Amino acid sequence: MPGNSFGRVFKITTFGESHGKLIGVTIDGIPAGLFINEADIEFELAFRRPGRLYVSPRREEDKAEIVSGVFEGKTTGAPLTVIVRNVDIISQDYAEIHNKPRPGHADLPYIMKYGYENWDYRGGGRASARETLSRVIAGAIAKKLLMLTNTMIAGHLKSLGDKGIDKVVSFEEALSSKLSPVRASSKELEKEYEDLIMKAMKTGDSYGGIVEIIIKNPPPHLGEPVFDKLKADLAKAIMSIPAAVGFEYGIGFKAASMKGSELADEIYLEENKFRWRHNFFGGILGGISTGEDIIIRCAFRPASSIRIPQKTLDLRTKEESTLIIKGRHDPAIAIRAVAVVEAMCAIVLADHALRAGKINPVRLEKDEAHVIEERWKEYMEKCGHTQASQ
Amino acid sequence: MPGNSFGRVFKITTFGESHGKLIGVTIDGIPAGLFINEADIEFELAFRRPGRLYVSPRREEDKAEIVSGVFEGKTTGAPLTVIVRNVDIISQDYAEIHNKPRPGHADLPYIMKYGYENWDYRGGGRASARETLSRVIAGAIAKKLLMLTNTMIAGHLKSLGDKGIDKVVSFEEALSSKLSPVRASSKELEKEYEDLIMKAMKTGDSYGGIVEIIIKNPPPHLGEPVFDKLKADLAKAIMSIPAAVGFEYGIGFKAASMKGSELADEIYLEENKFRWRHNFFGGILGGISTGEDIIIRCAFRPASSIRIPQKTLDLRTKEESTLIIKGRHDPAIAIRAVAVVEAMCAIVLADHALRAGKINPVRLEKDEAHVIEERWKEYMEKCGHTQASQ
Amino acid sequence: MPGNSFGRVFKITTFGESHGKLIGVTIDGIPAGLFINEADIEFELAFRRPGRLYVSPRREEDKAEIVSGVFEGKTTGAPLTVIVRNVDIISQDYAEIHNKPRPGHADLPYIMKYGYENWDYRGGGRASARETLSRVIAGAIAKKLLMLTNTMIAGHLKSLGDKGIDKVVSFEEALSSKLSPVRASSKELEKEYEDLIMKAMKTGDSYGGIVEIIIKNPPPHLGEPVFDKLKADLAKAIMSIPAAVGFEYGIGFKAASMKGSELADEIYLEENKFRWRHNFFGGILGGISTGEDIIIRCAFRPASSIRIPQKTLDLRTKEESTLIIKGRHDPAIAIRAVAVVEAMCAIVLADHALRAGKINPVRLEKDEAHVIEERWKEYMEKCGHTQASQ
Amino acid sequence: MPGNSFGRVFKITTFGESHGKLIGVTIDGIPAGLFINEADIEFELAFRRPGRLYVSPRREEDKAEIVSGVFEGKTTGAPLTVIVRNVDIISQDYAEIHNKPRPGHADLPYIMKYGYENWDYRGGGRASARETLSRVIAGAIAKKLLMLTNTMIAGHLKSLGDKGIDKVVSFEEALSSKLSPVRASSKELEKEYEDLIMKAMKTGDSYGGIVEIIIKNPPPHLGEPVFDKLKADLAKAIMSIPAAVGFEYGIGFKAASMKGSELADEIYLEENKFRWRHNFFGGILGGISTGEDIIIRCAFRPASSIRIPQKTLDLRTKEESTLIIKGRHDPAIAIRAVAVVEAMCAIVLADHALRAGKINPVRLEKDEAHVIEERWKEYMEKCGHTQASQ
Repeated sequence: MPGNSFGRVFKITTFGESHGKLIGVTIDGIPAGLFINEADIEFELAFRRPGRLYVSPRREEDKAEIVSGVFEGKTTGAPLTVIVRNVDIISQDYAEIHNKPRPGHADLPYIMKYGYENWDYRGGGRASARETLSRVIAGAIAKKLLMLTNTMIAGHLKSLGDKGIDKVVSFEEALSSKLSPVRASSKELEKEYEDLIMKAMKTGDSYGGIVEIIIKNPPPHLGEPVFDKLKADLAKAIMSIPAAVGFEYGIGFKAASMKGSELADEIYLEENKFRWRHNFFGGILGGISTGEDIIIRCAFRPASSIRIPQKTLDLRTKEESTLIIKGRHDPAIAIRAVAVVEAMCAIVLADHALRAGKINPVRLEKDEAHVIEERWKEYMEKCGHTQASQ
Repeated sequence: MPGNSFGRVFKITTFGESHGKLIGVTIDGIPAGLFINEADIEFELAFRRPGRLYVSPRREEDKAEIVSGVFEGKTTGAPLTVIVRNVDIISQDYAEIHNKPRPGHADLPYIMKYGYENWDYRGGGRASARETLSRVIAGAIAKKLLMLTNTMIAGHLKSLGDKGIDKVVSFEEALSSKLSPVRASSKELEKEYEDLIMKAMKTGDSYGGIVEIIIKNPPPHLGEPVFDKLKADLAKAIMSIPAAVGFEYGIGFKAASMKGSELADEIYLEENKFRWRHNFFGGILGGISTGEDIIIRCAFRPASSIRIPQKTLDLRTKEESTLIIKGRHDPAIAIRAVAVVEAMCAIVLADHALRAGKINPVRLEKDEAHVIEERWKEYMEKCGHTQASQ
Repeated sequence: MPGNSFGRVFKITTFGESHGKLIGVTIDGIPAGLFINEADIEFELAFRRPGRLYVSPRREEDKAEIVSGVFEGKTTGAPLTVIVRNVDIISQDYAEIHNKPRPGHADLPYIMKYGYENWDYRGGGRASARETLSRVIAGAIAKKLLMLTNTMIAGHLKSLGDKGIDKVVSFEEALSSKLSPVRASSKELEKEYEDLIMKAMKTGDSYGGIVEIIIKNPPPHLGEPVFDKLKADLAKAIMSIPAAVGFEYGIGFKAASMKGSELADEIYLEENKFRWRHNFFGGILGGISTGEDIIIRCAFRPASSIRIPQKTLDLRTKEESTLIIKGRHDPAIAIRAVAVVEAMCAIVLADHALRAGKINPVRLEKDEAHVIEERWKEYMEKCGHTQASQ
Repeated sequence: MPGNSFGRVFKITTFGESHGKLIGVTIDGIPAGLFINEADIEFELAFRRPGRLYVSPRREEDKAEIVSGVFEGKTTGAPLTVIVRNVDIISQDYAEIHNKPRPGHADLPYIMKYGYENWDYRGGGRASARETLSRVIAGAIAKKLLMLTNTMIAGHLKSLGDKGIDKVVSFEEALSSKLSPVRASSKELEKEYEDLIMKAMKTGDSYGGIVEIIIKNPPPHLGEPVFDKLKADLAKAIMSIPAAVGFEYGIGFKAASMKGSELADEIYLEENKFRWRHNFFGGILGGISTGEDIIIRCAFRPASSIRIPQKTLDLRTKEESTLIIKGRHDPAIAIRAVAVVEAMCAIVLADHALRAGKINPVRLEKDEAHVIEERWKEYMEKCGHTQASQ
């Protein structure tokens, strides 16, 4: 049964395999009148690019091509489709996997579900991390649309392996991680992460990590009780990302060991706006956004494609076997995942902003489109547009 | 926009408020031919009942009434609706809340979203934990349907406040927690939880906790990539529960600080069935069930309705105010939440079993219905049917 | 698989069987702040009531009871559920049908699909025309909501058997049919229809008919290309009604025998509003409403439950058999169908008005609610509130 | 709000504009293991090709390119995307339309809805008949999948302008219309239609027509009461086609003037299968397929793009104006529409066959895939594969 669409009003459908002709996404539900061009998309794609520095050396060019839904630079209300042709594919790398499913990977479940004969084993097919390209593309458009409500989203790598930061990270610090090749929120952390990655590249091993996202100035009262609560839709969006193994918002799991009296979160009025003193629950109460910053975290496990021999089963002989994965390997998928989690958050927020009537679902007024354009440029500059775009 | 439905094939729609006439649920998509009666439902409802022992003293009778979709004891393929009339309602308890929203609660977000004039402030209205009755009802039917694939679901309270168990809990131990009034998986833990609750009842405070669920013998290859992965749908289902603040599966957040080589999970063959040596990822790989036990955990924050004075805002005067909540209070919502998380897991599993063609979506054969009936009785007995049902 | 929900934003889920405990509907997606009471609903229900004059003599009381979603007379944003208890049920009337499926009726397809053992044969169960109660209830609320855009819906019985009116009927004439027990748009036609019905009651036969609906002042640009065009969603809504066998809009089937030059429909400007000279295509072009009156027609076949003996199969003996249906019979279902088609149109329009951002999906402003209230009263008076409500 | 997806299990999402880069469709929900190649698709595309004989002389090459979801000739369970690059585009033809909306066309509603500035006026953009390419592509795959249940779909042009056939057309006759350039079911009718088209080409006018579809050997008990009845989903699917203005099934509108006794449709048993003597209601009762042939009809209005001057409004001057459409014109869109209606029927049937569990939603067994392959070849030959494919 179909599972490749997400969202109700800002609705995305993704397609394409790692080693097929292309990766693509169709977004249905974007209001008409939004300026969108390929550069907007590629700006965001740059942050998930493998080979950017320490990550998987596959050189993906990731040239986004808008093939429908935009006319003379603006959305028309029709479904917007973006494709990225696959280049730099070395399929032979994957010949061994064909018969020796990687333990801890989607290989065997896909074989069990769809049939060995029907399995596109090249590069993980649809289960490849390359699928997340579609998400980042859609996320770029969602992020741009959210400029209308002046909402911005920034993530950073809160921890990698046993390194990490425990103190509260501000939105500005998170945003500054876009200038860090390892998405660290400080120079010290950057150094620690880099050392770890160097070690992993030498040993052929991989590390897990925790991504934290801060959503600044979210529209209040997003979220539709009782199942489409904002926390529920964020959880689904983020847990659908490959290698995501845990989700929390606000203080999250810590709250489980605390008392109600410790978490009493005084309400007060500031400039005629309701505020919460501590924002313990990350901008979401009753599943509805309060207007305070939304804070979520997602745990990523280490990649299962490591260069260290692993025990598995040979599907032909049904006997124990050892798998040695050659070729590229990604020592720290959580780095690239930051861009993906940001994108999924943007998609959920855009969807809910449209659902709650915060953005007109049919079309933007001209001045709205221009406000978005200005804010978007400002955002790109803050994210070091000059560096990233080269 | 609507948000009160969940599921694609086993699809539930819930309705009703805490202090309205009734709480109800309509389930559309149950195959015809399944035996269902009110006792089946009330058996499960007993495990979320407030006032059972240490929890909120509201005496809910929770008499389930099937009002559609069942004819002569069996489902017909028509939508099945179950209602529970609200009794024992003391609305005046909530008069103070009308103008003093509880900090950390859904009160103010509801007011902001729907308008102060339109807010059903009695008992939290739709945001009340009483809404979860609908979930447990639907979960009872989902659990029964899953007997066809011999799948069973059991949860336990892994931690409460700073107490808890860190070692692996077996399915049988989890199931035995149904005999514990505090859903503890051992007698020692039960004692610790009880002491904590006694303390909380004295001080008027509340505690958070972690619920763990073990799904035994799940059908393999459930989950529809890339957005409706099993882990994603479980996350959404569970994070939609009131007070849920975190979700993880398998080893969860711990994986973020580990190395790929530590998590290599050997595949082997046992009785012609693929097995994974460690089941690090809780029965789910690539978002698809492997057939290994599914293990998930959910963090619940402490209830915000405590008897300790809290600072808030008086909506009439717009001035700082102190809120003292009288009446019932639930010192440990995580206890009752176990039944709710179980139910949401059952709903997701039943939905995905139908989506993947593991259960015929139109009707059960007679012998299938009888197999279900036998296994269900066995299950009820294991859960101490005699005690619970009195 | 579930099929008992309709609509995306104004979303209804119906439940209940003809001879079960009740008939009900849950509407999810109504903005908060709309005044709704049982009298509003019963006003509309009166127009589909059997036994009103010439139609099926079953005396349904049709007491609507709002059981959720309304607090102090206004919607809260929560799902609104309305139930109607079944009374005056004579189940023994249907004993014969249990083994002799009515030809031309849903009996046998239900048996084939869901299983003989699981079939609720009493009164057609879910396939009964009584199911349309839910539709009229939801339609009443949709109609009321549409008062915000000043949109009104009126239907009339364009033909019954070989009688009927071929000339264009105005909105006012259609509205006046609410005062006619046979939904005729003129006194002459009323007489003709009544004569036909008298004949049918004598012979035990039944007649088909055509229902025409005029939607006055619809919001322009409703309809979402390319599949959720307004004409497509109206077609689905209306063709889902029991006994509906054909749908057309504007000049409909006649257009198939015409030339493009005959149907050129000049666009002009009137009071700064785009107008179409002839409105050949019933207010819908490209699947989008133009703002001109929407005109649709639906063909209903005669009821298959007649008192004349019919040949069928005895399911026990597998032999040819003759079926004589005793008890009530409805000589002209198309009369009551007028109210049902109106309701389905209202549901589609309300849904699309919300989808297109014409009505805020979260809540109505106070003055909006009051405007609705005034227009609604005016509408009820025009429909002869005094007579109908007694 | 999104409207470019259709279907629940066999779910299509379409994208692309008439004069954009491409037209495309993504199908999510095809079981793995189905053989699909571009020739299968192009075979069906040939029947909607403009310029084939008498229709719009635009020379579309319609080269289908499968870009995802197929690996080594078989579906993988991943979303299958097919694109057709737009070639032979002459955009300047449409310059005049930019300011003079065609009366009776989608031009002005699109402008009103999405904004003049955001309107892709080239060739009607998304409202172009070229959009139906996506439908025929998806229909080809649906048709092939339906070979598993041995279900076949054939349409013919029942009438064109005032010409047509009134007698019952057999499935074989309908199928033979694939050999007729005007989709006539007999040589005499072909001659009549051709004469009419010649006349239209001379005068620059256009004709409407009625398309009839016969579905042979449909799986019984498709259709999900009460809203997703088979008749309702067929109505929506077909009424979403550009220029469709009416829908009926079985004897359709005629039933409205008949008596119940005339339409009593005896049930009998033939080779242990339930049969209906007359199949008055076109294989659908209670909204559920009976197993008898499904028969539906759809009325198409004449194209509004004619070469005869039409009165309209000049949007710049707001003054009355005359529009003369140059370039290509399609005198009889109903001819090409036959392929489109067939496709939409196939999509609905495939979707419902999957919904009802008649086809495994996850994957086909090898022998099933081969049975499909054989029947498909047979079908192509019957449709004159040699001629059509050249």
